[in-house]
Amino acid sequence: MQYFESDYMEGAHPRILERLICINMEKNPGYGTDIYCEEARQKIRNACQCPDAEIHFLVGGTQTNATVITATLRPYEGVIAAESGHINQHEAGAIECGGHKVIPLPQHNGKLSADEMDKYINDFYADLNYEHMVAPGMVYISHPTEYGTLYTHQELDALSRICRKYHIPLYMDGARLGYALASRNTDVTLPDIARFCDIFYIGGTKVGALFGEAVVITQPGLIKQFFSIIKQRGALLAKGWLLGLQFDTLFTDNLYMQISGNAIDMAERIAKALKEKGYHLLAQPQTNQLFITIENTKMQELSKSVAYSFWEKYDESHTTIRLATSWATREEDVEELLRLL
Amino acid sequence: MQYFESDYMEGAHPRILERLICINMEKNPGYGTDIYCEEARQKIRNACQCPDAEIHFLVGGTQTNATVITATLRPYEGVIAAESGHINQHEAGAIECGGHKVIPLPQHNGKLSADEMDKYINDFYADLNYEHMVAPGMVYISHPTEYGTLYTHQELDALSRICRKYHIPLYMDGARLGYALASRNTDVTLPDIARFCDIFYIGGTKVGALFGEAVVITQPGLIKQFFSIIKQRGALLAKGWLLGLQFDTLFTDNLYMQISGNAIDMAERIAKALKEKGYHLLAQPQTNQLFITIENTKMQELSKSVAYSFWEKYDESHTTIRLATSWATREEDVEELLRLL
Amino acid sequence: MQYFESDYMEGAHPRILERLICINMEKNPGYGTDIYCEEARQKIRNACQCPDAEIHFLVGGTQTNATVITATLRPYEGVIAAESGHINQHEAGAIECGGHKVIPLPQHNGKLSADEMDKYINDFYADLNYEHMVAPGMVYISHPTEYGTLYTHQELDALSRICRKYHIPLYMDGARLGYALASRNTDVTLPDIARFCDIFYIGGTKVGALFGEAVVITQPGLIKQFFSIIKQRGALLAKGWLLGLQFDTLFTDNLYMQISGNAIDMAERIAKALKEKGYHLLAQPQTNQLFITIENTKMQELSKSVAYSFWEKYDESHTTIRLATSWATREEDVEELLRLL
Amino acid sequence: MQYFESDYMEGAHPRILERLICINMEKNPGYGTDIYCEEARQKIRNACQCPDAEIHFLVGGTQTNATVITATLRPYEGVIAAESGHINQHEAGAIECGGHKVIPLPQHNGKLSADEMDKYINDFYADLNYEHMVAPGMVYISHPTEYGTLYTHQELDALSRICRKYHIPLYMDGARLGYALASRNTDVTLPDIARFCDIFYIGGTKVGALFGEAVVITQPGLIKQFFSIIKQRGALLAKGWLLGLQFDTLFTDNLYMQISGNAIDMAERIAKALKEKGYHLLAQPQTNQLFITIENTKMQELSKSVAYSFWEKYDESHTTIRLATSWATREEDVEELLRLL
Repeated sequence: MQYFESDYMEGAHPRILERLICINMEKNPGYGTDIYCEEARQKIRNACQCPDAEIHFLVGGTQTNATVITATLRPYEGVIAAESGHINQHEAGAIECGGHKVIPLPQHNGKLSADEMDKYINDFYADLNYEHMVAPGMVYISHPTEYGTLYTHQELDALSRICRKYHIPLYMDGARLGYALASRNTDVTLPDIARFCDIFYIGGTKVGALFGEAVVITQPGLIKQFFSIIKQRGALLAKGWLLGLQFDTLFTDNLYMQISGNAIDMAERIAKALKEKGYHLLAQPQTNQLFITIENTKMQELSKSVAYSFWEKYDESHTTIRLATSWATREEDVEELLRLL
Repeated sequence: MQYFESDYMEGAHPRILERLICINMEKNPGYGTDIYCEEARQKIRNACQCPDAEIHFLVGGTQTNATVITATLRPYEGVIAAESGHINQHEAGAIECGGHKVIPLPQHNGKLSADEMDKYINDFYADLNYEHMVAPGMVYISHPTEYGTLYTHQELDALSRICRKYHIPLYMDGARLGYALASRNTDVTLPDIARFCDIFYIGGTKVGALFGEAVVITQPGLIKQFFSIIKQRGALLAKGWLLGLQFDTLFTDNLYMQISGNAIDMAERIAKALKEKGYHLLAQPQTNQLFITIENTKMQELSKSVAYSFWEKYDESHTTIRLATSWATREEDVEELLRLL
Repeated sequence: MQYFESDYMEGAHPRILERLICINMEKNPGYGTDIYCEEARQKIRNACQCPDAEIHFLVGGTQTNATVITATLRPYEGVIAAESGHINQHEAGAIECGGHKVIPLPQHNGKLSADEMDKYINDFYADLNYEHMVAPGMVYISHPTEYGTLYTHQELDALSRICRKYHIPLYMDGARLGYALASRNTDVTLPDIARFCDIFYIGGTKVGALFGEAVVITQPGLIKQFFSIIKQRGALLAKGWLLGLQFDTLFTDNLYMQISGNAIDMAERIAKALKEKGYHLLAQPQTNQLFITIENTKMQELSKSVAYSFWEKYDESHTTIRLATSWATREEDVEELLRLL
Repeated sequence: MQYFESDYMEGAHPRILERLICINMEKNPGYGTDIYCEEARQKIRNACQCPDAEIHFLVGGTQTNATVITATLRPYEGVIAAESGHINQHEAGAIECGGHKVIPLPQHNGKLSADEMDKYINDFYADLNYEHMVAPGMVYISHPTEYGTLYTHQELDALSRICRKYHIPLYMDGARLGYALASRNTDVTLPDIARFCDIFYIGGTKVGALFGEAVVITQPGLIKQFFSIIKQRGALLAKGWLLGLQFDTLFTDNLYMQISGNAIDMAERIAKALKEKGYHLLAQPQTNQLFITIENTKMQELSKSVAYSFWEKYDESHTTIRLATSWATREEDVEELLRLL
């Protein structure tokens, strides 16, 4: 059986475990006040070319999205997201549970259109009844998106300009940010992201860590007393040094980019082979997720030897499935997968 | 200047004020425990042919929707509504503020399609990831809808059956319920509504009362300790007898239906005259709201003498506007309006 | 039967009803944008000697407290209140339902001690773990308190100074504010309150109105986009002119103060007579509420002819009960009461 | 420098890390559906002698308390806790943020009194106004308490009986449960706890795990669709097998009890030596926390070589400090501490 159903099946990169063993019996202060967190913060600031950034480490993605978004919004505000955005679909209503509406706009390959967003906000304030409606108070984008697609430099620039025009923070969910940065199809760097976004997070759970997401607030103080809010939301890890240690390791010797590159390489090999075998890819893959439309009986057959994710029904006789590579995918797994396909 | 912009501009039907003056200096107990509330409850139960119904009086529509819906849902549940539903558009995020997602489905003249709803719920539970998503825990419909349209007996029956199939309560926002019941284009009666819905409210604010909405829970006990929740939501009127008195009056001698009929008569006269004058009505009006598509310069001209509601931009040179009649609209107002149009 | 159980049993002062009848069939715009609200706002600003005050009209007390407090606090903040404060006892958890802790401090005849509050806030920030605790973000006081007692000018001044020292808004619940201002035992005027408090409300429900509370924000803009929050909380009355009309009437020709004075006069007569008859008053009454400790069998006897509020068990054989006068209490009611006692 | 300031400074018991390394590159399904979680659940059920228990693994204590409590309560309910309870003091308002009041009752060495609780609930429902107040809907106790004290078998039995009398679930915060069970001063076993409580959690973070708390719902189904609520609260770990693995290890070969015993042994040695040296212990320590009242200049001196927790000011010249041992405390650390004291 070959497992390609998600990018969070393995544990952590071995270098993380090695260091964990070394410091396991050290006595470290709690809640992110330790030296490993401080080291990690400094390395992330450097990588982002954002020397003043305020950085917090949280445990998981839904937790991070809910904590950041509800901490930023005022009661009468909601967050704009592509209809397909993770916060709008697969977080069990975490944003609404925190009191705020997700304002869905159309998705285009998982992405928000800057023009549509501009029009939406403009029309909102032109509406005489706007005070009876949920004000757009933040913009959420995921990069890569839920479809594995990427914003271009120009697209991010446009979104950022519109957000700043209306004084609305731009927030990026970077659960798989490494795979975006390591893509061969991107013109967006980490410093670009830090310049375009007001807040974003660098995903660890899906990119080499046991767990953990690094929230980067590029305008320090944007969220007042965020520490208390993290605690209140149950998102403050007692042994915060576990998070610091992991991000310190990932941001040492370029490890985060290097292991992200592996996922891209493996995805490209699979994509190339699939095309040669005549499979129908939904789009040219940009990151580590491949969406394949496959005939249903063939899919049944495949499921005996390959674990994939069901994505959506394509038509009566075809289904779209997802294969995901990761930092941990090995060449032999790919070889075996291709043999099976 | 003629005012047709909404149906809540006047105060109350004179009979209500007459009685208010009579009992103004009586000493009545608070919070809906008085005899007027009890009388009103009994008359509403009779009108609904629902002898066991539990009835509460609240002050306004947004308040009622938010209180009922959040009191009914479990934390992981959201409420299905047509995308155009009032709770999804013009209640400033009251449902989300209470912790729950409004799950928008397509609207068809403001209405939910039973088939689409059935498919949505069915697909939801067929999704392997449904536990990561917001479960449909209630269905919200408005009758008349925000477009002034009406569900047919058959449509309500179908919605009700689907709700019961999935054990999901059906809730009707009846802010303008009188106008639905008095329409010449309806085959739905108040007892029908009481049979099809688990909870609904009978609107007073827009139908003859100073304010007030009567919540009818057709399955008593569906919401445990609702009184405390009403209090907690700031929706408990100290002098609850003000609400009882108004509904008692409206449900005496068929007053509620009779005054609702006036709005329908006046709307029909306007519709007929408009068609004769060559105006373009968006649809054949079913209740007290008329949607007219009008050329922009003509609209500007009109706005000098008629107060209407802006509805939406139709195209570059036309706009759709709304005219609303009410229980209080007088023949002479209509004559004058028609002269101006 | 004589009814002295609360001060919200009657409807409105006749002058309000007279005006209501006059304008009932006028067509007024909704949501507080009408001329009556504007008139009332101006008169209240004058009475407060606070020409820039931002004024909103809400329907009831719990609603007002919950809306104001949750709109002001940031997520990690709570509101300080005397343990006996209405928000901490009898509002069904409305503040917590809105996401915030009520931080109880000891009550002294229903009042907060400025020194204790100062110490609490000072100790809070001295605690190394303060970021793990709920930050004091607002101070709630009621005036009169739930025990009918009054803050002195000096006490309010002290509370206000401490709040300003820590940049924490001071909020006064004035459900019975008229009775505080009309008391013979007060040195606090309405302009004093406007100077000491950042936000307060002038109660209508218990002082001559059918319902309604006027929120005065003495520092305009303190709550951003409060209108939308009022709507979201279900606290926006469609026919807002009903509130404007009532407060306009109450603040014309000194009516609010004059009718409040009646409650004080009647309470004083009862207190004097009770003392002469040997009854034990819990304290010298300062406003319209009298707390009497009475032997249980006598209480049973009394309950046949007088409606009072149970307050608390005093000891095994005695109970403390509350009698309340109001703007509407008539001399003959008092005579009859005294005959019965 | 010797560190005794808390029991969550080290990482995990070495056996956990050993196993983590072994399975790190396995591909495991997410969200607690893996075999390690299933193994752990079974072992915990056995240890609790509660074969039907429903078990969920969460990451941290505040998160667990907030998720369990808000998932259990109905909107109008609050949770009773000792005034000193962690949820009432040091969780940054997490319960209130979730919409519910913490109802504080007096603490007696950190414990709730069954009699006082019985009286409180009884009085609550005897109050004519109880529907205007927050209903007690759950009881929270911590064991050990925040003061390191323990409920006796008899005390737990009494609390449990009262809860069942009123149909209110009893919930135990077992952040340090191992130290309670391993105490020489307890007559309470894990099966006792499973019998007395409706829900409790077995703490991992402070007892040998990197992080993690095992929630045991002894009455399965008490919380409907808890999985979705965990997700919604951001408390669902993607790589849930990390939690399963840790609890599986801790509940193999009695490891949890054995390492808890170490903390007790070390605490007893310190307590004994302190008493011999004439130190004033606040109480005879029952678990792994020692509270010492110490003269302020001596405390300053001590702080140069020993890290402790400030607990509270005792009087003008004395302070109470806390020393905590843990599963990881070594004999040599204790020797060194005693030398320094």
